[in-house]
Amino acid sequence: MGKIILTGDRPTGRLHLGHYVGSLRRRVELQNSGEFERIFIMIADAQALTDNADNPEKVRQNIVEVALDYLSAGLDPARSTLFIQSQVPELCELAFYYMNLVTVQRLQRNPTVKAEITLRGFAEGAAEGDTTQRQGIPVGFFTYPISQASDITAFKATTVPAGEDQEPMIEQTREIVHKFNSVYGQTLVEPEILLPDNAACMRLPGTDGKAKMSKSLGNCIYLSDTAEEVRKKVMGMYTDPDHLRVEDPGKVEGNTVFTYLDAFCLPEHFGRYLPEYASLDELKAHYRRGGLGDVKVKRLLIAVLNETLDPIRARRREYENRIGEVYEILRAGSEKARATAAETLREVRRAMKIDYFDDRELIEEQARHYAAKGE
Amino acid sequence: MGKIILTGDRPTGRLHLGHYVGSLRRRVELQNSGEFERIFIMIADAQALTDNADNPEKVRQNIVEVALDYLSAGLDPARSTLFIQSQVPELCELAFYYMNLVTVQRLQRNPTVKAEITLRGFAEGAAEGDTTQRQGIPVGFFTYPISQASDITAFKATTVPAGEDQEPMIEQTREIVHKFNSVYGQTLVEPEILLPDNAACMRLPGTDGKAKMSKSLGNCIYLSDTAEEVRKKVMGMYTDPDHLRVEDPGKVEGNTVFTYLDAFCLPEHFGRYLPEYASLDELKAHYRRGGLGDVKVKRLLIAVLNETLDPIRARRREYENRIGEVYEILRAGSEKARATAAETLREVRRAMKIDYFDDRELIEEQARHYAAKGE
Repeated sequence: MGKIILTGDRPTGRLHLGHYVGSLRRRVELQNSGEFERIFIMIADAQALTDNADNPEKVRQNIVEVALDYLSAGLDPARSTLFIQSQVPELCELAFYYMNLVTVQRLQRNPTVKAEITLRGFAEGAAEGDTTQRQGIPVGFFTYPISQASDITAFKATTVPAGEDQEPMIEQTREIVHKFNSVYGQTLVEPEILLPDNAACMRLPGTDGKAKMSKSLGNCIYLSDTAEEVRKKVMGMYTDPDHLRVEDPGKVEGNTVFTYLDAFCLPEHFGRYLPEYASLDELKAHYRRGGLGDVKVKRLLIAVLNETLDPIRARRREYENRIGEVYEILRAGSEKARATAAETLREVRRAMKIDYFDDRELIEEQARHYAAKGE
Repeated sequence: MGKIILTGDRPTGRLHLGHYVGSLRRRVELQNSGEFERIFIMIADAQALTDNADNPEKVRQNIVEVALDYLSAGLDPARSTLFIQSQVPELCELAFYYMNLVTVQRLQRNPTVKAEITLRGFAEGAAEGDTTQRQGIPVGFFTYPISQASDITAFKATTVPAGEDQEPMIEQTREIVHKFNSVYGQTLVEPEILLPDNAACMRLPGTDGKAKMSKSLGNCIYLSDTAEEVRKKVMGMYTDPDHLRVEDPGKVEGNTVFTYLDAFCLPEHFGRYLPEYASLDELKAHYRRGGLGDVKVKRLLIAVLNETLDPIRARRREYENRIGEVYEILRAGSEKARATAAETLREVRRAMKIDYFDDRELIEEQARHYAAKGE
């Protein structure tokens, strides 16, 4: 059997360059590589609701934003199945049965869950009568590693492209698969994580130099930003705070503009936008020894980013004028995803032997048992 | 709208007199009262799997036992919908969304969950690397109050006949309903618990005098026991350990034989089986003052129990010869239950606004939004 990808995003906002560098660009490459038999890209609205239950409208409005970002970035519905998680109810049923195969203690040890709980300020240990403003952890949020296992296994995914921080989640899925197969017989497929293949695919910092782009920090460059928005954001970008005068030596490490150039700049860009340098290494060397101003480097980055984003923007404009068609793509993708998940669920129910009404052996055996008893 | 009942049992063994006195007898009365518009009786196989994941065969084999007990005891498929939980996948989807409305902390405070964890010996606080033989708590078991809320609300049940020990579970359901309705708009129905109406409906002790009948203790009288099995079990029953000679005064309180007579004996039984007494009170008075032997009282109980069980046994024998028909009753009931649950789920999804593809307003509004942006 060929290789199958499952991946996706939570629709809680438009996608930004961090998503693009961290996953989306890679996904498009994987799609176009021809190495995968099937590719499922999930808009994880149900997962987003686990900690946005009070604000379903945010999730609802952002589904189409994420879909537009996907299509604009080059995901092709003819080659990748784009679908909405909540439209595949089979995923809930799989999660329901997987919950019997994982202990509460095991979930509590999941480092990703721990980190997310800290990040989001849920109060894990809140005692009865706790009057602080911190919220408890929603059960749906606490159990989402199990829900992810159902997303991955429903499609018999062999391959989950993700960052290192997601390794504990994939490990949880592998444990569930292993446990299910050993209790009920070989049914599910153990997935492998596909880590980014170079440093540039790692996490992109915010424009303010903070470790992560985050909507709430206002430090993101969105795939849907205009050229002018990109120009403004790059001009305000964090560089080397000690690089005060052009003639001063500057630091390249931790300098956001150079980190972005590492992620986006190609050798041919110099010929087009800064022909006095042959490569990024030459530009960095000049910056380090002094005599190169931030504005010049930023202008290069602006040109490079806009060259990257221009075709994405053009495709986005096309799709924005055909919103009905975008929903149609999602509807067709969700139907296709649902058919696949339903087939896996049938196999799961058969393995668990809870398909009683189709189980002629069960019914006949019991009929014989009671007939014998009555004699 | 009329009143609706939801109740049921976990299919982990045949039903015994404890089930009959505690719930089943009452259910048949409620069914025959005509006061309820709809009655749903669920064989909770999915719930049984939450702590029997390693032993699905036990659950699978006992579904028909419980169904036979139901039909034998007088539940009538024409008036009560008998169904199997796992055949209504909509219940999983409801539970999935309700999980976002309950915190982990709230579940941990549920006294029923706490008590069950103690009873079953799950190690709640098992630390990493714990090498003891105690198991962790399966997540499905930990979250079963949420699953129960979905069972109850799926059928818009107004009334859940149950013992006092189930009050915290119903309270959890009411909280979920309240939270759902306040976040997403009035959709679900808050159920009420219907407590037993007299002391005889409370928990019946085991034949050994222990507080509860339990298969593992071997102290149960089953609805499907033969007259001879009932005779033997009653003859071996725990009475008053200090009542050594017939002429000694005896204790009625804590004397299992009298507790069973309280639950089953009717005034007319004396005319038939022990005409020298006019009532149970007279018999008790004689026992208390001395001069009445245990065997005489036990013989009365044997007669009373067998009179109660004879019509149940007769109906069981009929159904045992028609196992295919029993499965057909469950299949038809499950289909009917599924249609009801699916309608509730449609309302839930509409309230949550996650029925995107049917949501013309969403699609048209977003189309206008992007068209305006493009101008």
